[in-house]
Amino acid sequence: MANTNFRPLHDRVVVRRVESEEKTAGGIIIPDTAKEKPQEGEIVAVGSGARDEAGKLVPLDVKAGDRVLFGKWSGTEVKLNGEDLLIMKESDIMGVIG
Amino acid sequence: MANTNFRPLHDRVVVRRVESEEKTAGGIIIPDTAKEKPQEGEIVAVGSGARDEAGKLVPLDVKAGDRVLFGKWSGTEVKLNGEDLLIMKESDIMGVIG
Amino acid sequence: MANTNFRPLHDRVVVRRVESEEKTAGGIIIPDTAKEKPQEGEIVAVGSGARDEAGKLVPLDVKAGDRVLFGKWSGTEVKLNGEDLLIMKESDIMGVIG
Amino acid sequence: MANTNFRPLHDRVVVRRVESEEKTAGGIIIPDTAKEKPQEGEIVAVGSGARDEAGKLVPLDVKAGDRVLFGKWSGTEVKLNGEDLLIMKESDIMGVIG
Amino acid sequence: MANTNFRPLHDRVVVRRVESEEKTAGGIIIPDTAKEKPQEGEIVAVGSGARDEAGKLVPLDVKAGDRVLFGKWSGTEVKLNGEDLLIMKESDIMGVIG
Amino acid sequence: MANTNFRPLHDRVVVRRVESEEKTAGGIIIPDTAKEKPQEGEIVAVGSGARDEAGKLVPLDVKAGDRVLFGKWSGTEVKLNGEDLLIMKESDIMGVIG
Amino acid sequence: MANTNFRPLHDRVVVRRVESEEKTAGGIIIPDTAKEKPQEGEIVAVGSGARDEAGKLVPLDVKAGDRVLFGKWSGTEVKLNGEDLLIMKESDIMGVIG
Repeated sequence: MANTNFRPLHDRVVVRRVESEEKTAGGIIIPDTAKEKPQEGEIVAVGSGARDEAGKLVPLDVKAGDRVLFGKWSGTEVKLNGEDLLIMKESDIMGVIG
Repeated sequence: MANTNFRPLHDRVVVRRVESEEKTAGGIIIPDTAKEKPQEGEIVAVGSGARDEAGKLVPLDVKAGDRVLFGKWSGTEVKLNGEDLLIMKESDIMGVIG
Repeated sequence: MANTNFRPLHDRVVVRRVESEEKTAGGIIIPDTAKEKPQEGEIVAVGSGARDEAGKLVPLDVKAGDRVLFGKWSGTEVKLNGEDLLIMKESDIMGVIG
Repeated sequence: MANTNFRPLHDRVVVRRVESEEKTAGGIIIPDTAKEKPQEGEIVAVGSGARDEAGKLVPLDVKAGDRVLFGKWSGTEVKLNGEDLLIMKESDIMGVIG
Repeated sequence: MANTNFRPLHDRVVVRRVESEEKTAGGIIIPDTAKEKPQEGEIVAVGSGARDEAGKLVPLDVKAGDRVLFGKWSGTEVKLNGEDLLIMKESDIMGVIG
Repeated sequence: MANTNFRPLHDRVVVRRVESEEKTAGGIIIPDTAKEKPQEGEIVAVGSGARDEAGKLVPLDVKAGDRVLFGKWSGTEVKLNGEDLLIMKESDIMGVIG
Repeated sequence: MANTNFRPLHDRVVVRRVESEEKTAGGIIIPDTAKEKPQEGEIVAVGSGARDEAGKLVPLDVKAGDRVLFGKWSGTEVKLNGEDLLIMKESDIMGVIG
């Protein structure tokens, strides 16, 4: 993201997929038999948040650099600065590995 | 969870499945003929809660260590630190055995 | 429920089914020809209530010991302390016989 | 309802069906050719009301004794004290004949 | 409505259908080729209004005597005092001819 | 609209269709190959607005005389004072040409 | 837009499509194998915003001139001043390239 900034709108986040084959430092392995396997990734950029019913901005619960799990079929693939990334909603993120 | 922390987002919880074959101290037995049998498990980690319409965080009603019943098909299977666990929403939890 | 306590979450209740064959003191008989016959039962345990949009807890309208009518197909069957019980939402309860 | 009281929950009401063959004092006749003919009945008991979004109880707009019209297929049939009655939601009531 | 009063509940209205063949004073003619032709009618009675989310009653925007257009398939037919009328929701009313 | 006034209810508007063949002053041409082509029209009358959740009336964003684009299949056709017009909801209006 | 102004209503925006073949300054390339490929475009005009539940206007998060990504099938095609443009809702915009 050195050349280009991409600002996701609202409650969207940009995620760099991390291959589950490379065993992570945290030792998390995704089972390969589950029907919809969660995937591991790293948050690259986050939107400014969704607005609640009173119109107030509620910031997202993840930040750039967070290691996250997300549903295998979540998000839309884009290529930013030559890199394959995913744009998804924060609600597609199951949790943060820390 | 000694090596890795996993923080579920929002109203999600991480559950360790307890085999219903091992009769629990509380004497709870799940009938094996029901169409969708509830399962017994133990809460491993909980999210910080969902936000109400005013944007205020409402903490979850379960905490790590709680023995719970949940629907058989609830949640997504993950392997954290080599252990098979489930990530689900608190609304999939029917109640706490105490 | 002497050995085990079960705390239903939110707006769920635990119900002990009362066979409609045993004619109740109140003289209520469920017709056996209706398509989805309501069933009679007794409330065993109730959740702490659902939260309204402002995040405030709204207690349930039924309490343990209440005789209730509920839809035939409502709830999930569980065995607690060897007894067959039902977990359902308060909204599945049609009313209280008193 | 001399022997038994039945308290409908929330926005439910108990209705005693009035045969549309018996021409009512008000002279209301239900046409017998309409696809879903409204039915005439009398309110026997009403719930304490539904809660609005702020959790405040909003009482129902009908009361015991009201003559009402309701959709033919509305409600669930029950037998209370040997009498065939209907439990339905207030929203199934079209209006009050007075 | 001399003999009988009918009070529609909430946001319902009672409408007397006006045959579109009789050309109205306002000169409104409903095209006879449209798929779902709006119909002309006269408001006979109105409910007290729907409640907003704060539980406050919002009165209806039409009153008895209003000439209105409504969707051809809107409402439920009833016979009140021997007269064929329609009960529908205010949201089925497209507007007022004045 | 000299002879008859028509007051659309709530968030409805009355629109006079403008043939896209007649090239408008603004030079707007609707492409004839798109699947659902937007149409050009002129607002003839507007409702008083929809109520927000607090029951407060929110006036519409268009006014009589506005040139607008709307979806080809939006609205219901009526003949008012011998003129073919459309009744639709403001949400069917894409924008104002000015 | 020299000759004609077009004001999108509410939360709609007007977008000028940018061919993904012309590699942008930011170096963003859309992969050509994805099922629903996001498209790149430039915001031409924005609505005044959607109203929150309290009826307050919430301005949009994008402005004229913003480079954006949006879903391939988003929006409705129109020709304004001879130019092919798209009208879509802000929620169809994934983010801003900056």
